[in-house]
Amino acid sequence: MLKLYSAPGTCSLAANIALHEADAGHELVTLDFANQQQRSPEYLAINPKGRVPTLVTEHGVLSETPALLLYIAQRFPAAKLAPLDDPFALARMQEFNSYLASTVHVNHAHGRRAARWADDAAAIADMQRKVPQTMTESFTLIENHYLQGPWVLGEDYSVADAYLFTIASWLKSDGVDIAAFPKVAGHTARMRTRPAVQRALG
Amino acid sequence: MLKLYSAPGTCSLAANIALHEADAGHELVTLDFANQQQRSPEYLAINPKGRVPTLVTEHGVLSETPALLLYIAQRFPAAKLAPLDDPFALARMQEFNSYLASTVHVNHAHGRRAARWADDAAAIADMQRKVPQTMTESFTLIENHYLQGPWVLGEDYSVADAYLFTIASWLKSDGVDIAAFPKVAGHTARMRTRPAVQRALG
Repeated sequence: MLKLYSAPGTCSLAANIALHEADAGHELVTLDFANQQQRSPEYLAINPKGRVPTLVTEHGVLSETPALLLYIAQRFPAAKLAPLDDPFALARMQEFNSYLASTVHVNHAHGRRAARWADDAAAIADMQRKVPQTMTESFTLIENHYLQGPWVLGEDYSVADAYLFTIASWLKSDGVDIAAFPKVAGHTARMRTRPAVQRALG
Repeated sequence: MLKLYSAPGTCSLAANIALHEADAGHELVTLDFANQQQRSPEYLAINPKGRVPTLVTEHGVLSETPALLLYIAQRFPAAKLAPLDDPFALARMQEFNSYLASTVHVNHAHGRRAARWADDAAAIADMQRKVPQTMTESFTLIENHYLQGPWVLGEDYSVADAYLFTIASWLKSDGVDIAAFPKVAGHTARMRTRPAVQRALG
């Protein structure tokens, strides 16, 4: 059985949604970040990065959301969670997921995790101040160029939708009004009607 | 014909190496970052992110290194640049590439591109100061947990090797001595013997 290590409010929601979409029958383990459970020796033995998500499979352990999402789509092909038979369309999905991981999530992280990249309190405060601007820039790009609609890749739902929904759910706490991005806001509303999303949100 | 937009010293080297490994017969276009050519209206019409790499295909335009690398591997299967028939091994490759893109490249970018995430000169200087520490942490993780040897995924070369080689080539300018990571240093030396790498380095 697949086991997903997660924490509330993190990007692990994306993989959890994908697993529910696939009816994977997975086990969900929720870490207590407030007590730094992700830094415990037990968890670091599973994932030395000390982050979530982590997916434990019978073949071994995987981390990094874009990797988990593609793996879930490939493992459960009947769920049709990725354009597995079309390399260019699959590359489009990976392009989108990689942008979310390496640019949009990183912008967001400068609000709560700025100490990863600076030590001075003033520097951290300056980084936090800029988050609404960088998140607005990223979502403007998504709205104008990458979200084809109704789903990220157009007519076909994919794991990219679970990932976009997850990161868009952070906009409010990042000081950005999702209403400025009508296509993204519509996407979030559509996602909330999906049974798998409702199950993942508990 | 595939056309790759690149710039010296950037992560576009990884896709360029992969295309040479595949004997793709691609065209290489080198942008002049010193004159902000990546921000020109002509280039933004191709890639609205204003970054490299960009791969122009007959189906459309792709960006984001992990997406390009998987696409090149899928498009040229005879070159055996990824474990395409093994979803778990492929997920391992994507995990590695995603970590390079969303953590290691991001750490490096706080040296040269800190203004993406802060405005104050003092904040930017503090972010730059921390780069040797964050790059050391990332390469310690790679050395101890992810670089299986002789190649990233073990016995089989893959596009992940082109990507690791590219980012490891930044260590010196990031103030980190690659000799602290013997497996990574050995990997870089092996990479330099490959004809495709020599062709990509010009």
